Amino acid sequence: MYRDRIRNAGLYNRIVTADEAALLIRDGMTVGMSGFTRAGEAKAVPLALAERAKREPMKITLMTGASLGNDLDKTFAEAHLLSRRIPFQSDPGLRKAINAGEVMFVDQHLSETVEMLRTHQLPDIDIAIVEAVAITETGGIVPTTSVGNSASFAILAPKVIVEINLTQPLLLEGLHDIYIPTKRPHREPIPIVAPEGRAGLPYIQIPPEKIAAIVITEKLDSSAKVTPPDDETRAIAGHLIEFLRHEVKMGRMGTDLRPLQAGIGSVANAVLHGLIDSPFHDLKMYSEVLQDSTFDLFDAGKLVFASASSITLSAEKHDEVMPNIGAYKGRLLLRPQEISNHPEVVRRLGVIAINTALEFDIYGNVNSTHVGGTHMMNGIGGSGDFARNGFLSIFVTKSTAKDGKISSVVPMVSHVDHTEHDVGILITEQGLADLRGLAPRERAALVIRNCAHPSYRDALADYYTRAAARDGHTPHVIEEALSWHAALRERGTMMKD
Amino acid sequence: MYRDRIRNAGLYNRIVTADEAALLIRDGMTVGMSGFTRAGEAKAVPLALAERAKREPMKITLMTGASLGNDLDKTFAEAHLLSRRIPFQSDPGLRKAINAGEVMFVDQHLSETVEMLRTHQLPDIDIAIVEAVAITETGGIVPTTSVGNSASFAILAPKVIVEINLTQPLLLEGLHDIYIPTKRPHREPIPIVAPEGRAGLPYIQIPPEKIAAIVITEKLDSSAKVTPPDDETRAIAGHLIEFLRHEVKMGRMGTDLRPLQAGIGSVANAVLHGLIDSPFHDLKMYSEVLQDSTFDLFDAGKLVFASASSITLSAEKHDEVMPNIGAYKGRLLLRPQEISNHPEVVRRLGVIAINTALEFDIYGNVNSTHVGGTHMMNGIGGSGDFARNGFLSIFVTKSTAKDGKISSVVPMVSHVDHTEHDVGILITEQGLADLRGLAPRERAALVIRNCAHPSYRDALADYYTRAAARDGHTPHVIEEALSWHAALRERGTMMKD
Repeated sequence: MYRDRIRNAGLYNRIVTADEAALLIRDGMTVGMSGFTRAGEAKAVPLALAERAKREPMKITLMTGASLGNDLDKTFAEAHLLSRRIPFQSDPGLRKAINAGEVMFVDQHLSETVEMLRTHQLPDIDIAIVEAVAITETGGIVPTTSVGNSASFAILAPKVIVEINLTQPLLLEGLHDIYIPTKRPHREPIPIVAPEGRAGLPYIQIPPEKIAAIVITEKLDSSAKVTPPDDETRAIAGHLIEFLRHEVKMGRMGTDLRPLQAGIGSVANAVLHGLIDSPFHDLKMYSEVLQDSTFDLFDAGKLVFASASSITLSAEKHDEVMPNIGAYKGRLLLRPQEISNHPEVVRRLGVIAINTALEFDIYGNVNSTHVGGTHMMNGIGGSGDFARNGFLSIFVTKSTAKDGKISSVVPMVSHVDHTEHDVGILITEQGLADLRGLAPRERAALVIRNCAHPSYRDALADYYTRAAARDGHTPHVIEEALSWHAALRERGTMMKD
Repeated sequence: MYRDRIRNAGLYNRIVTADEAALLIRDGMTVGMSGFTRAGEAKAVPLALAERAKREPMKITLMTGASLGNDLDKTFAEAHLLSRRIPFQSDPGLRKAINAGEVMFVDQHLSETVEMLRTHQLPDIDIAIVEAVAITETGGIVPTTSVGNSASFAILAPKVIVEINLTQPLLLEGLHDIYIPTKRPHREPIPIVAPEGRAGLPYIQIPPEKIAAIVITEKLDSSAKVTPPDDETRAIAGHLIEFLRHEVKMGRMGTDLRPLQAGIGSVANAVLHGLIDSPFHDLKMYSEVLQDSTFDLFDAGKLVFASASSITLSAEKHDEVMPNIGAYKGRLLLRPQEISNHPEVVRRLGVIAINTALEFDIYGNVNSTHVGGTHMMNGIGGSGDFARNGFLSIFVTKSTAKDGKISSVVPMVSHVDHTEHDVGILITEQGLADLRGLAPRERAALVIRNCAHPSYRDALADYYTRAAARDGHTPHVIEEALSWHAALRERGTMMKD
């Protein structure tokens, strides 16, 4: 039984129910779970744990790769199970608890969590729960649709629960490259010099005796709700492609561009989708998540290789790709997020980083996380890992939100996740601002003219004119700099009467 | 004549006066000059150029390593020579022109300028001016007290002017390690795995025919004005050492700590100085600038190796160290700033990054550059290169400035150079806040209690209480968040009546 999935016979006696496995988790523990961009999360034990927490109040610190699927974070929040959540989430229910101050959320660069764990700068992991395709003869854990932080969680935890998910195809085996950096101060260079570079093993190697429980599940990954491209996202993609054509023409890169990274979400997906009809070819991705667009680019013959930490697909794309995932072998790799997002590799490869902004200001500072400067949306995720180290650092957003009540271009952002030093190109459906090598006063003129929505352009220009009259490298009317956000809070709109 | 300094006889005929060499520079050119933390800047040709600009108006784009000594930036500003200045400066006269909008200042991470030049994302360098100890038989340029960006400027420029400075001791030869990363997309890992690691040549190798002029100078580097430690900087050092002892006790590092980086300036110098009386030993530095404290630590037997991009000393320390600089061979290395500050190496080595904040807020965001959110002080320098990638990211500042009229701890910083995601430890003379693994609400309590000056503590606590009553992951009274800076501007103080 499950012999193709559990190949170490000594582990058969570890098979238990999810409820039994959940009993290994006690109040106050720090738990590391698999899951990244709603892919490959442990599914059964977390639910059993949440059920138990309803009867028997308990609190845990939960670390994951990134966001979880199957409404797990919602379920946890409803069960009041979480005291602390690290390093990312994207669930409306959990978000509410975070913004109410009920759950302490630590919003981290995705490459950094396990680095801090390894040196005991975060609470030690008491137990890891990892979804797997299979366990090898030697006890190696083969992850499913994401690697995330699973490898380091399993290596660092004294106990590991493995969920064998029978719906995850065995064909996924071989797609993973599990490389863990050597310990400082004796760390060697990460031996990856191309997106297709392999440096590790196709499974997570831990002593099999650490596997405290094995649970068999059959629950699917959640499917991504991908909004199809619309006029605005198509316009953003168009501006990007025009810009990239110009860069190629200027000799800054070839028609194979540089390895591409794109954040999760509909805008980034639409932007990548736009590359299908571009003059570029032999593209590669070195990203953190592969969405529908990746496979569309493969199928269009545009993409030759994709490296990431997870695969997150719509239901239709999932049904199309997953049964044939073997066909992508040799063209796909899934890595720990520490490596997919590692500053060393991102800078070495010269990645083109394309991430979504919530808002940006006239000087090029980007807010990716906080609505109105106070309310957490999802978290910074990997955007900083890529933006700070990429060859090009591009941020995209529609120029307005909430039916025009919010301008995504503001005098001063209400929270900074990416500083002016780390932002190269800004794109909205209105146009593109190339900020490279420009001083703040030059940036302001360009951002207002090219990126702001016409309905906010005059107000921004008026603000800038009055600010510049005051002197300063980065002119501001400081007592008015956040007045657009104050107006939004008070009146529900940034639009002047 | 100068045979020990110019060892390639074919270059003798390039020796000209500074005025003659300056004629190679024309209006509109982009000029790359040596100089980093007021060390090793070209001295004669820049002055001749500024003199010429007084008679014959001209504008150039000037790139350097970092700040220049000998009041060069002041002289340039007075001569209205600069249209654009990249990537750092620290001169009050130039600062004034920048804040008036007369000079376009591009404030960059110091590791990034040459990376952008190499890929033509900044204007190409027309001519480089590099101070040297000597030129080797093969035309290799031996830098002086800084490397900065000199190597890449010389490699990328079609023409190079070399200033041979006879006051810079020949003993400096051999202290430099000039390694330039290979070009992307075929970049190899940077082969440096320890502060003492050598990867390149002891000189800048360029085709000798590119050397268009050689000028002989005898002008000294400016000496650093180091304020001696006072009660407050001693208290900051004390808090840091207590913290580091705790980290050692918790097993997070050994008594040799991790490679140390400290920003330039009196506070950082005083903090490093405090390590003389600490229980730590066999220390190493992997920093961008070596100040007096480095040599005091060497002489106290605490430091075993120091790597940086420049040496900037007080007059007394200069007279003591420079004639005997040979005695430090084997314990000192000077590298291009791209390498001293490289994210890849900084993260691999696990550097302890200690940098100075202008102000920080209750949530751990740091402003390093903008007074009142608008007026440029010096620039971000290398602080982001280290803070973003270090093992520990520490920011220090006195809790007040201007006789208590300014609180360095504010509700919201008026400009962000280092985001909450990149700041681990905050220290003032009042105490230390360890923000690692904490959510914003937890950070606020700690920062207010431990770091704020007693005269501002209640006002901060009051702000936070009212903000937290409003909900939000990062609570703010958004319409009041920058009111402290507005008050400073209007009334000259952040202190309430």
